[in-house]
Amino acid sequence: MNKFWSEAVKRTEPYVPGEQLNDPNIIKLNTNENPYDPSPQVTEATQNELKRKLRLYPSPDADGLRDELGRYFKLDRDYIFAGNGSDEVLAFSFMAFFEQHAIVRFPSITYSFYPVYAKLFNVPYEEIALNRDFTLPAENFFGADGGVIIANPNAPTGLYLDTAAIEEIVMNNPECVVIIDEAYIDFAPASAVSLVKQYPNLLVVRTMSKSRSLAGLRVGFAIGDPGLIEALNRIKDSFNSYTIDRLAIAGAAAAIRDEDYFQEIRQKIISTREWLISEMKIRGFHVLPSHANFIFVSHYKASAESLYQRLRESGFLVRHFQKPEIENYLRITIGSDEQMEFFLNALDSTILSSAGSTVQD
Amino acid sequence: MNKFWSEAVKRTEPYVPGEQLNDPNIIKLNTNENPYDPSPQVTEATQNELKRKLRLYPSPDADGLRDELGRYFKLDRDYIFAGNGSDEVLAFSFMAFFEQHAIVRFPSITYSFYPVYAKLFNVPYEEIALNRDFTLPAENFFGADGGVIIANPNAPTGLYLDTAAIEEIVMNNPECVVIIDEAYIDFAPASAVSLVKQYPNLLVVRTMSKSRSLAGLRVGFAIGDPGLIEALNRIKDSFNSYTIDRLAIAGAAAAIRDEDYFQEIRQKIISTREWLISEMKIRGFHVLPSHANFIFVSHYKASAESLYQRLRESGFLVRHFQKPEIENYLRITIGSDEQMEFFLNALDSTILSSAGSTVQD
Repeated sequence: MNKFWSEAVKRTEPYVPGEQLNDPNIIKLNTNENPYDPSPQVTEATQNELKRKLRLYPSPDADGLRDELGRYFKLDRDYIFAGNGSDEVLAFSFMAFFEQHAIVRFPSITYSFYPVYAKLFNVPYEEIALNRDFTLPAENFFGADGGVIIANPNAPTGLYLDTAAIEEIVMNNPECVVIIDEAYIDFAPASAVSLVKQYPNLLVVRTMSKSRSLAGLRVGFAIGDPGLIEALNRIKDSFNSYTIDRLAIAGAAAAIRDEDYFQEIRQKIISTREWLISEMKIRGFHVLPSHANFIFVSHYKASAESLYQRLRESGFLVRHFQKPEIENYLRITIGSDEQMEFFLNALDSTILSSAGSTVQD
Repeated sequence: MNKFWSEAVKRTEPYVPGEQLNDPNIIKLNTNENPYDPSPQVTEATQNELKRKLRLYPSPDADGLRDELGRYFKLDRDYIFAGNGSDEVLAFSFMAFFEQHAIVRFPSITYSFYPVYAKLFNVPYEEIALNRDFTLPAENFFGADGGVIIANPNAPTGLYLDTAAIEEIVMNNPECVVIIDEAYIDFAPASAVSLVKQYPNLLVVRTMSKSRSLAGLRVGFAIGDPGLIEALNRIKDSFNSYTIDRLAIAGAAAAIRDEDYFQEIRQKIISTREWLISEMKIRGFHVLPSHANFIFVSHYKASAESLYQRLRESGFLVRHFQKPEIENYLRITIGSDEQMEFFLNALDSTILSSAGSTVQD
């Protein structure tokens, strides 16, 4: 604390991202990064852009990328906003659509950045309890006062809500904006983007960090009615005119273009996930039905805390949240088949064999 | 306007950046970009980074870059904050140090983004009139209620305030933060960074877009007391954990390392500026004494509006502000010697020869 801090700084409770270790011997399964490199076209496009004019400002509206996204989603460019990762897009959305006097609803177990934004922008919020099986009680999101934000699939549970349920939530909040954070949607059945032309209060937020393997490039986007997109542009243009650099615009556009590569990677991860889920169940884990690139698991005997520590000692970094309702769960990112084999071997040889004693520690 | 817009969106008056034309036949002298490419080491470092792990998140604190800046300024890393361009750093600073109930002061003629931030964040402000010669009356910034923000050298005038005057302003505002926006300082005599260890209320903001030729890469930074830097980190980590991508971190760090290249470019631009100023004076222009990579000029006869139009028709884009006090001035970015020769020739052959009639149009 410092006498120069604003009220806003004082009320913040900053988000703590998963650890970014540089240790090459650690297998990182903690921040839901993609185990596969981005499309080779990304490297090519970025290298070409590098030969051009890094000394000149980028397009303030990331036109090249928005055009590519427009083609991909078959939507006009004015339905699309691009930003510096979906975190920035979400921050701008809080500023653009939520107020300091109207309560916003989000699930009690979800992406832990939502309450962080709410504190920063002084937006009141209500955390809606999930059902005991972690499914989302859609009707409890109807008729919100200030807005709704839902991650679908949800994090860290991986549970997916179908488009019909999303549509009900959107329909039943005609006076406020419903944000669907689809960071993991490419590993799930269907996106709510199909609804944006019908509902002027629906904003779908996406990231290129997960399914497109571009966490290091910082690109996210939002899709919604042009009225909502204009609001986001007004906020951005009052904050930072150019939030995506030239290399990121070029690289992200190339990633969108390479549909074959995208489908291949996506399918590989889904296959690995399904195989991993069955292997984990054999080992006594309760595994939530995941539609994301991670699984959320709890062991019938070994505590999550002790498993987290032992996995770390064995060279595997997973995510453990210190939150009462989920403190006995671990979130494990889907890596490559090879990484997951190493992981299962480590579980078998060192961890589960001593699980009993660990619990008693 | 749209019923879903927040109060924040409604009160915004977004910044309008200088035009980014893709026409290769236009010589862009309107957004103070550097006419020279960045250091070859930037390309090399970026290409090396590209071979590494774009699929992984960057360092949330841009450690590699902050370490390099720390060596450069001979300061510990906790005196340094890095962000997505100095515009983002300034936006975070408004959130971190300014309040909705305390009036912030900045000059009436300065970087036009300051009132934009103030409107977005609902920070009240007072625009302090400059002297008639556009110099800054330092004493009118003493004892501010909510804070001070000053661009030094100022934009669009190019006028520089020496470090002693800056120190007086900082000393005379012990209860609030004084932000010195040094976007153009590398073209001026001395930086206020030398004062940060003495004054816990001084924040110096810099960009790599101008003197380091990296407008396309989006990197800026702030230097100040660790208490202020911690506030900026708390805001960033409540907004977007990773605002600078891997390629930008690597490229910016390389640009800082290549001191020889930096000095060469910087000197070239200063020489071109001095030569251009004398040539403009010969042609009947009033030229403010610039310490930036642009000049601010007014012709004794031809109106700025007509000169802007005619220059545009001749293939030169300069900046003209529709603000009463400066509507008869043009801001012209310093290009290469060759570009400036073309520019002077265009002035001579088509523009000034018809200036008389233009004024009467």
